[in-house]
Amino acid sequence: MVGLRRLMRPVVSFEEAVACVDAASPRLGTERVRLREAMGRVLAEEVRAATPIPPDHCAALDGFAVRADDTLGASAYNPVELPLLAVTAGAALPPGADAVIPLDAVDLNGLSHVQVVEPVAPGDNVERQGAVAAAGALLVATSARLSFRHIGMLAAAEIDAVQVVRRPRVQILLTGPTAAARTPDSNGPMIRAAVERDGGVIADVTSLPRARPSLDAALAATSGDLVLVIGGTGPGPDDHAAATLDKLGELVFHGVTVRPGETAGFGRTGSGVPAMLLPGTPAAALWSYELFAGRAIRRLGGRNPGLPYRSREMTVARKIVSAIGITEICPVLFAPGDTIEPLPVFAEIGLRAATEGTGFVIVPAASEGYPPGAVVTAYLYDDV
Amino acid sequence: MVGLRRLMRPVVSFEEAVACVDAASPRLGTERVRLREAMGRVLAEEVRAATPIPPDHCAALDGFAVRADDTLGASAYNPVELPLLAVTAGAALPPGADAVIPLDAVDLNGLSHVQVVEPVAPGDNVERQGAVAAAGALLVATSARLSFRHIGMLAAAEIDAVQVVRRPRVQILLTGPTAAARTPDSNGPMIRAAVERDGGVIADVTSLPRARPSLDAALAATSGDLVLVIGGTGPGPDDHAAATLDKLGELVFHGVTVRPGETAGFGRTGSGVPAMLLPGTPAAALWSYELFAGRAIRRLGGRNPGLPYRSREMTVARKIVSAIGITEICPVLFAPGDTIEPLPVFAEIGLRAATEGTGFVIVPAASEGYPPGAVVTAYLYDDV
Repeated sequence: MVGLRRLMRPVVSFEEAVACVDAASPRLGTERVRLREAMGRVLAEEVRAATPIPPDHCAALDGFAVRADDTLGASAYNPVELPLLAVTAGAALPPGADAVIPLDAVDLNGLSHVQVVEPVAPGDNVERQGAVAAAGALLVATSARLSFRHIGMLAAAEIDAVQVVRRPRVQILLTGPTAAARTPDSNGPMIRAAVERDGGVIADVTSLPRARPSLDAALAATSGDLVLVIGGTGPGPDDHAAATLDKLGELVFHGVTVRPGETAGFGRTGSGVPAMLLPGTPAAALWSYELFAGRAIRRLGGRNPGLPYRSREMTVARKIVSAIGITEICPVLFAPGDTIEPLPVFAEIGLRAATEGTGFVIVPAASEGYPPGAVVTAYLYDDV
Repeated sequence: MVGLRRLMRPVVSFEEAVACVDAASPRLGTERVRLREAMGRVLAEEVRAATPIPPDHCAALDGFAVRADDTLGASAYNPVELPLLAVTAGAALPPGADAVIPLDAVDLNGLSHVQVVEPVAPGDNVERQGAVAAAGALLVATSARLSFRHIGMLAAAEIDAVQVVRRPRVQILLTGPTAAARTPDSNGPMIRAAVERDGGVIADVTSLPRARPSLDAALAATSGDLVLVIGGTGPGPDDHAAATLDKLGELVFHGVTVRPGETAGFGRTGSGVPAMLLPGTPAAALWSYELFAGRAIRRLGGRNPGLPYRSREMTVARKIVSAIGITEICPVLFAPGDTIEPLPVFAEIGLRAATEGTGFVIVPAASEGYPPGAVVTAYLYDDV
């Protein structure tokens, strides 16, 4: 791999890099949040019903409460007259009642009685005490990511606050392009949005001049749960990210056999905060974020650490080429007949390969790619 | 269907109800937002590159700029000495240069020259002007929902604001349980969270006493893009939602052959705001939201109107039973061998069927359900 000879550490494989990141990103501690702010959060402890839901035998619909035995033998020829006990859906049955007759199934007889023309069975149109959940029943399991359905279930159990995994606080240090590069900063806005997608909280975004003293000072003052240093990861004279991390803290790896993202690195700052070094080339920043930094954030926050994309087996329509010895992210497009075909790679068209494509295939280091007809796992963006 | 005889309109089918909702929820107008706030928003107009990206022929990596012709014949035995023109990744090539030699592929000869030991071809390690996008190239198409990849691409094109579809403003009127019901309000927190999932903005949540004058006053003062009236949709004496809407505006339908959610309704308030009537029973509120109200919000906001769940074909392991004549939402669990099996229905275990299940199957009105071995479309929650 061109340019990696001068990195500060032996190059690691994709799998080794993932293992390093995983080891440094255990699930964070917990905090209590109000239920109305809990949507999308990861539950840190299971929630059980304190009391039965519903708390009593209730009417399942609007109607008239009866004792089923009293309706025995009722028919159109032999209507049974019973006291009028109107109940609305959700209301507890009056003492002695064990069934509900719907509004439109009886005839009123004045304001105090109903005429029943058909027998009912005990429990008809009754929501039994504890039917939704018995006291002590598990309502939502630990590690569930709360959807609006869970919010409804917990609100029904009169729970107004839950213990959730804390959101990872992420500090971003942008070392900025070199003075000679005219490219605008696309990494700052892009990675900020990605961190938010993964449930992280942006603690701070700092743009630094590309000079070693400013990076030294910034890395010495880090806090939070993860630091992302973007840019300055290469082997050039203006690339200080790895050397600075090595000097001030610990450099665990620098250089990964992954493309895009060969010059990514990982370690800890002097204060012990995990630090990911993302290359400044936009496509490399994107993929080293997706594969490593995003994974760390998802793990810290208790989410599923895998790539947050749907994957499925698809057939290759046109040959996908990949260099041997490097794990390669190959952008793909849908092709006719529910197949996929390659797009020009990231090295050629940069970020465009990620916005034009419908997804990507990860070709392992040991593979040279896939011939037409091969069935491979495709990750699909699905965000349109 | 029990209880529907006394509704105010002829009962409509699921498909008819969807058609009514769709007709009343065209895509909203647009607004301009800063790129850093555009994540997840729906693009209202395509974005094209104003200038080529990159703007010049650039170095693709840190190295030395050369004219390729000058390296012809270079070898270890016959090194070619060239002027030292250091370039960093992303920087424009100096005039006359057409290739870049990586840092570690040359020997330095003092501070002013390099020794090249291998010829290079024109374009080697060069990112050509316009390689990512030519001037005028489409960067992101209309109606794309912006992911962090798009944010990066747009930032790289120096775009700092985009025209997006306005977020639907949703007003929630909770008619509240009847005085007799002891159930807590789970619909307010649940539907609020669902609206946010679908990209709506909660304009207001108002809890009303279950009395006709208060609903009259609230419906007369509606604003925003959609009103959700929750509760009071049944045929009972305390159910005023449909009658009030009919009196003050227009009641398009009341009663749908869908379970849960039979007493859902739809119309417009006096000021012309589309209004969805959601039954107060939690599972019915959930499903009439998912199938109708959520669809309206997704359509208004320019999103894909379909259910926001992944679906796939799965095999039924145990019989799924459904009443004929009614479209039924049947909660399902994963079973061994990549199959699904039914959970107790919503009428029995309420919201619990939505939190215990791994998804659901929609059984059309014409079907009595599915025998073991049938292959059906299962919608999967996937949010754990």
